[in-house]
Amino acid sequence: MTESIPSHVFQGYVGKQKAYAKEGKGVYMTIEKNGKEYKNVFDAISGAAVASLGWGDPDIGKIMNDALTKHTYSYPGLIANEEAEKLAQFYIENSPPGVFASALWTCSGSESNENALKIIRQYQIERNKPRKIKIISRECSYHGFTLGAISIGNTPRGAPFKDMMINQDEVCIKMPRCWPYRDMKEGETEEEYTHRLLDTLEKIILDNDPETVSAVCVETLPGSSIGTPVPPKGYLKGLRDICNKYDLIFMLDEVMCGTGRANPNGKLNCWENFLAPEDAPDIQTVGKTLGSGYVTIAGVLIGPKILDVYVKGTGLILGAQTYHSHAFNCATALGIQTKILQNGLTKNIFENGNLLGQKLQEALLAQPDNFVGDVRGLGGFWTIEFVHDKKTKQPFPPEMKVGPRFADIALEHGVNVMGLAGADNYGGTWDICLLGPAFIITKEDVEVLVQRLINSVQALAEQLRSTT
Amino acid sequence: MTESIPSHVFQGYVGKQKAYAKEGKGVYMTIEKNGKEYKNVFDAISGAAVASLGWGDPDIGKIMNDALTKHTYSYPGLIANEEAEKLAQFYIENSPPGVFASALWTCSGSESNENALKIIRQYQIERNKPRKIKIISRECSYHGFTLGAISIGNTPRGAPFKDMMINQDEVCIKMPRCWPYRDMKEGETEEEYTHRLLDTLEKIILDNDPETVSAVCVETLPGSSIGTPVPPKGYLKGLRDICNKYDLIFMLDEVMCGTGRANPNGKLNCWENFLAPEDAPDIQTVGKTLGSGYVTIAGVLIGPKILDVYVKGTGLILGAQTYHSHAFNCATALGIQTKILQNGLTKNIFENGNLLGQKLQEALLAQPDNFVGDVRGLGGFWTIEFVHDKKTKQPFPPEMKVGPRFADIALEHGVNVMGLAGADNYGGTWDICLLGPAFIITKEDVEVLVQRLINSVQALAEQLRSTT
Repeated sequence: MTESIPSHVFQGYVGKQKAYAKEGKGVYMTIEKNGKEYKNVFDAISGAAVASLGWGDPDIGKIMNDALTKHTYSYPGLIANEEAEKLAQFYIENSPPGVFASALWTCSGSESNENALKIIRQYQIERNKPRKIKIISRECSYHGFTLGAISIGNTPRGAPFKDMMINQDEVCIKMPRCWPYRDMKEGETEEEYTHRLLDTLEKIILDNDPETVSAVCVETLPGSSIGTPVPPKGYLKGLRDICNKYDLIFMLDEVMCGTGRANPNGKLNCWENFLAPEDAPDIQTVGKTLGSGYVTIAGVLIGPKILDVYVKGTGLILGAQTYHSHAFNCATALGIQTKILQNGLTKNIFENGNLLGQKLQEALLAQPDNFVGDVRGLGGFWTIEFVHDKKTKQPFPPEMKVGPRFADIALEHGVNVMGLAGADNYGGTWDICLLGPAFIITKEDVEVLVQRLINSVQALAEQLRSTT
Repeated sequence: MTESIPSHVFQGYVGKQKAYAKEGKGVYMTIEKNGKEYKNVFDAISGAAVASLGWGDPDIGKIMNDALTKHTYSYPGLIANEEAEKLAQFYIENSPPGVFASALWTCSGSESNENALKIIRQYQIERNKPRKIKIISRECSYHGFTLGAISIGNTPRGAPFKDMMINQDEVCIKMPRCWPYRDMKEGETEEEYTHRLLDTLEKIILDNDPETVSAVCVETLPGSSIGTPVPPKGYLKGLRDICNKYDLIFMLDEVMCGTGRANPNGKLNCWENFLAPEDAPDIQTVGKTLGSGYVTIAGVLIGPKILDVYVKGTGLILGAQTYHSHAFNCATALGIQTKILQNGLTKNIFENGNLLGQKLQEALLAQPDNFVGDVRGLGGFWTIEFVHDKKTKQPFPPEMKVGPRFADIALEHGVNVMGLAGADNYGGTWDICLLGPAFIITKEDVEVLVQRLINSVQALAEQLRSTT
């Protein structure tokens, strides 16, 4: 039977013909699907919010060849390399002074979150607080797809593995998601919503014995789970203050939203939109745009509070994964990030991304019959949410798979997006389209993309009106 | 304080000056340590049993540049790429016919084992055996360093994280290690030892309700935990038979020992030393030599038994990690593996690796006062074990760190090895040196390496005699 199946890669729909990426240039790519070739597709999600430089970058060959000349593999737990050092220094220096002090380079966002959990655990042991074990993360969050990362996440993708997660009562605790569009009550102000969420967190901490709580971990701007809801005023600062009050580590996951995707200062971190440097996270995970899809790199950034405890303690990180701090990947990422900063591309994506969002809001929100309930986001990371009823925000039945269906329609209209159908633990469902273009997007590109998305939304609406 | 620390990479000894890999060529590399440069160091462990081609391979630039031209990143859960397909076909075709039917490409051995656990779990759900949840792996095993991989492993490196592991009573069950040198009883034959281990496994399965047991998972030839003990006659076949009897998945971890490191047929899989194709694993993880340290790639190979259940079931793998089946990594790995097979390098490492082991056995085992208790291994993967008493096999006190100390001494004698101090759950400790050179090693290289290792062993012995 295996001879006759059209794919031998165990991913997506196994044993079926898959869609294939054929080539890419800038923000455009060619996709082959069901025997049909789609040329000049605008990659509005850059794979999975990965590309920063765009596809087929003219300098990437030189960057990677330079990286190769600097690369001799060594096991990083025993023998280090200078490329990993340089990338660490780059990230530290391009973050507000004093916020980060050290970095670990991994091969995926999942690995970064796994390692952050371990770093936090050892931190508590090093400072003689071994009872501090509980990690509080959010419902409807996504932190990766290895089992530890699944355990602090909470999406339908992880549900089949619930019986093999890390203890959800004693270790991986959940607090409510933060999603103004769906969860702010009628008449509630932004500040009141923030206070309600923070009060709930504080109650969870008190109910769980603060002496056993170790950390609070959230995505600064959640992505593939609930689609880029901008945190309400005071929310992240409130989390920081609660962490200070109860002696907890404040961890931000910026794998999808960070490393230039949505920074207001032409730099790297997304939290700079919401937090002063003195309220920065103690530990932060990053990935995706760091290697721009060319190399498989991600990382953990460690603040001085954590580093100091290690240095004054055993000072020893036991073990390392084979490919941690891989010299070739680090040197390539550094070449990519240097080019991005030198060319002002994080500034560019912040401006043109916000322009994209604003134009979509103007074009889509006011129309009464296009099933677009919300357009939200920040910088280069946006979401269109589809609803059956724009007033009540009632979603479509999940079996209609409106999110994924929109992705199919968008491809026919020359746009690659991520169309997702979400679900929570209380029967709630939703349909979203994620947008996260490459940092090189121009004003003219934005015009083209907006028009194609408007056409796609229109086509979806027509299809939905004829079937519902 | 962070300004004054000499390293910003959160690995090994944090905040201290580290050893650095400076450059490499073939089986030799330059290491800088404590301000001293060690040139022409024989890399006898090739990083972490990673290099297959050796360092600075003359063709790697062309291989990676070709790979880059074929690469446009796409999110693999939605849009596939042909390079991942080709690498899957390569591995399937270079394994015995019918054994593997599909492959998933990941970024590390840890991720491979995490994904294998998830694939096995979904397999049981797809075939309507949702109660089958328990994975039986071995004491003293190492399967990686993410939390799921730590949970099926069992080494001191994972101990600090025991409170955040997947349930060790209900999900991740352990059976005894397989280590003839330390665990065969006096007067016991190899066959009797095998039967004792298999009987113990069968008792564990029966004690745990076979209807809730899902899989048995072992490293074919364990590496960084207990150092390459060759499985005794009938052991792996016995595991396979027990898996058949109780309807369990038989999983082999060949991340360290596989992909040409120890194959008797000039091909890829280590288990071909011990098992007929009809007794092959149902699922297998690989890594390390697959990318030869140039790219960060690993994989999961899936047999037809598992694939068929998926195809007849939902057929859908929910979700994917961002960097799964990365086109650039897959194309580079395929270029590397094609060169290796075309040049007969897996045949070469099997022969010259066995020559290395044999010469070390001859030179080191008979000598009464060199503290070498055992020299064991297969193909390109060998271990020297140090003991305080060669007759009683009594180990050195763990605080003497004889394994790591040997690595320091070996570096002074021009060899890079992995020196490890191990421990089990019953107070047992041991000291080993791991050897796993690049596949390009020549007979002449073996002579040089053996002599340097003999010198290193002698120097260690002198040092130990003067201090114990």
